[in-house]
Amino acid sequence: MNSKFKFKIIKKGKGSRARRGRITTPHGEVDTPVFMPVGTQATIKSLTPEDVKEAGVAMILSNAYHLFLRPGHKLIEQLGGLHRFMNWDRPILTDSGGFQVFSLGKLNKIEQGGVLFQSPINGEKHFFTPELSMEIQQALGADIIVCFDECPSCTATYDYVKRSSELTVRWANMCKEAKTNDNQALFGIVQGGIYPNLRKQSAMATVKIGFDGYAIGGVSVGEGTEMKYLAVDNTIPFLPEDCPRYLMGVGTPEELFEFILQGIDMFDCVMPTRNARNGMLFTSFGKLVIKNSRYKSDDRPIDVECHCYTCRNYSRAYLRHLFIAGEILAIRLNTIHNLYYYMDLINKIRMAIENDTIAEFQNKFYEQKLPNSC
Amino acid sequence: MNSKFKFKIIKKGKGSRARRGRITTPHGEVDTPVFMPVGTQATIKSLTPEDVKEAGVAMILSNAYHLFLRPGHKLIEQLGGLHRFMNWDRPILTDSGGFQVFSLGKLNKIEQGGVLFQSPINGEKHFFTPELSMEIQQALGADIIVCFDECPSCTATYDYVKRSSELTVRWANMCKEAKTNDNQALFGIVQGGIYPNLRKQSAMATVKIGFDGYAIGGVSVGEGTEMKYLAVDNTIPFLPEDCPRYLMGVGTPEELFEFILQGIDMFDCVMPTRNARNGMLFTSFGKLVIKNSRYKSDDRPIDVECHCYTCRNYSRAYLRHLFIAGEILAIRLNTIHNLYYYMDLINKIRMAIENDTIAEFQNKFYEQKLPNSC
Repeated sequence: MNSKFKFKIIKKGKGSRARRGRITTPHGEVDTPVFMPVGTQATIKSLTPEDVKEAGVAMILSNAYHLFLRPGHKLIEQLGGLHRFMNWDRPILTDSGGFQVFSLGKLNKIEQGGVLFQSPINGEKHFFTPELSMEIQQALGADIIVCFDECPSCTATYDYVKRSSELTVRWANMCKEAKTNDNQALFGIVQGGIYPNLRKQSAMATVKIGFDGYAIGGVSVGEGTEMKYLAVDNTIPFLPEDCPRYLMGVGTPEELFEFILQGIDMFDCVMPTRNARNGMLFTSFGKLVIKNSRYKSDDRPIDVECHCYTCRNYSRAYLRHLFIAGEILAIRLNTIHNLYYYMDLINKIRMAIENDTIAEFQNKFYEQKLPNSC
Repeated sequence: MNSKFKFKIIKKGKGSRARRGRITTPHGEVDTPVFMPVGTQATIKSLTPEDVKEAGVAMILSNAYHLFLRPGHKLIEQLGGLHRFMNWDRPILTDSGGFQVFSLGKLNKIEQGGVLFQSPINGEKHFFTPELSMEIQQALGADIIVCFDECPSCTATYDYVKRSSELTVRWANMCKEAKTNDNQALFGIVQGGIYPNLRKQSAMATVKIGFDGYAIGGVSVGEGTEMKYLAVDNTIPFLPEDCPRYLMGVGTPEELFEFILQGIDMFDCVMPTRNARNGMLFTSFGKLVIKNSRYKSDDRPIDVECHCYTCRNYSRAYLRHLFIAGEILAIRLNTIHNLYYYMDLINKIRMAIENDTIAEFQNKFYEQKLPNSC
C-alpha cells in the first residue's frame, strides 16, 4: 500500500456493477473506467507523447519484460526512469513480464522460485523471479506496478491451473515483500483460468495478501468473450469494492462495454494500435479496412462523426494511398484515429455511468453498427 | 510566364554570386535561397504537414512520376489537387518525371516524342511525353512545375549528351506550348552533363524559349561535387539574373554553401529525410550515427545547439533505443531533426547574405566540424 495512490468511486451505475471513479497517482489523476494503450518498447508505436495526449490518453501501459531485455531497466533508471526516458509525464502502469515470459520466451522452465527463459532477441538465458520483476518495475518507476504471475493457456487442465494459480499467489506474497518503493502502487493478479472455484480461490487468496488494486489475468489468452465474461463474473464478487479492478489485455469496443458493466475499472490492449498498423479502423458504424478499393476516390474522412486529427484533415482516398504505398504516415494517422476512437468511446461510457444512461448508450452503440453501412 | 509568380532579389552578396530573394506563388511567399524536402508520394516520409512546418519548411517538392503511377494524377485532380490531397497549404514544386523515368523505369526506349518505360510497381507500359508531363503536373496543381527532360548519366559520352540536351530543348518547347494553367510557373531545365560548351548551348537555348525560372539538371547523377561545381559554373553565366535558379537533387550541407555562393536560389534533396531513416543525423559538429554503441547511455540531445522538437525532448540514448528496436518513432524523430538542421542552416545562410557575413559564417561552419567531436 502507498499513500500517493488513491482510488475513489464517484458514482455507481444503476442496474449494473459499473462504476465511475478516479485514480490518483504521483503523475496525476486518471478518470475510470480507463483504457491504457500499450507502449511496449517505451513508445506508443509511431506516436509522440503529444499525439497520445491529443487523442485523450490519460495513462499508458509499458512492458517490464521488453524493457528488461532492451535497453535494460538499469539503463532507464540511470537516465531518470521511464517517464523521463520516453518523455511521458502522465501515469504509467507496467506489467510484470509474466504474460510475455510465457507467450514470447523460449525454453520456459517454471520453478517454484521463478521462470527460466531464453531471450527471443539474442538467445540469452534469464531467470525471471518475483524479486527481479519488482526490481525491474521499480527501476522503471511506473506509477502502478503489478505482481509477477504465471499465465496459463486457456486450454490448460484444472489440475494445471490449480497448481499454477497457487504458484501465482505464492509469487504475489514474494512481490509484496520485495517491493520497497512507496511511490508506486502494487496490484495483485488473480488467475484461475476458466474454472469458477479456482478464480474464487485465487481472488480470495490474493485479496488476503492485500494490494492497492487487483488485476484479472489470464483472460486474453485465446478464449472467447463468453469465457472471459464467466472468468470475470466469477472473480469480481471476491474483490473489494473500494479498489480498482483491472482486466488485462482486453479488448474490443464491445468488450469494454460488457466488462465495464461487470465492474471493471481499467483496461489495456494492443488492439487499437496494432489494428491501425494493419489498416483496420474503428468507426461509429463498424470496422473499415482502408486498403479496400471502394475507398480509392472517397473524399470523406474515415468517420464523419469523429473529431480526431486524422478525420479533421485527411480523406479515405489519401489514407488508402498512403497505406498502399507503404508510407509510415499511414500507420501514424491510422493509430491517431483508432486511439481517439477508443478514448472517445470510454469517455462517453464514463459520462453515461455518471448520467445513468449507460443502457441507452449501449443500445445506440450497437444500433449504429449496421452491416455495410460505410 | 504567369502573373501570380514573382521573383525578387532583395540583396546581392558581396564577393560572390550569392543572392537573397523572395518567390511569390499562389500559396504564399518563399524566401530564397530555399531548400525543399522531398515528398515523393504526397508525404514527407513519416511527418505530418504540421511537423514539416514546425521544422521551418516553406516549400516542398513532390514527384509527378510517382503520383502518376500511384494513385494517379487524375484521381488527385478529382480530389481537389495535391495541396488538398496531402493537406499542405504552402507552395509545392513538382518535378517532371524525367529523372525518374530514366533512373527507375525499366526498358526505357527514348524517341523524339517521349520515352517508353515500364512501371516498376506493376509492369504496365507507359509512353511519357512532354505533353503528358504537363498534363500530370497541371492536374496535381503545384505552384511551380518543370519541363520534361532527358537526364543522361555522368558517364555519357559527349555525342550522347549533345543529342540528349538538344532533345531536352526540343521537349522544353513542347512543354511550354502544352502548358495552359496560368496559375503555375514553368521552369526550364538546363542539361549538358559535364561538358562546358554543352551546358552553355543548353542554357542559351532554354533561356531563348523563356521560362519563369531555370533548373540545372543532370548534376546529381553520380558525379562528385567538383564536377557538379563545374557544371553549375558553366551554366550560371548564361542564365538571366532576374529569374530563380534551381539546382536539382543537391545536396549535402557543404554543397548548399558552395552552390549558394555560385548563385543558386533553390535546392531539393532526399538527403536529410533519407539519412534520418538510416539513423544518420546532421549536427553542428558533423555527422552522428545514432545506432553507435557510444550513445547507449548518452543523456544529451543529438545536438545541444539545436532547438528542434527532438533535441528539446529526447536523449541520444532514447533515440538509439528506438532505432535499435526498429520503432517507427525513431524515423520520425530523426527526420524532424535532420529537416530542422537543413532549414536552420539555410536560414542562417540567408541572414549571412543579408548581413554580408557569409564568408565568416562559412568559415565558422567548417571549423565547428572537428573530427570525432561528438
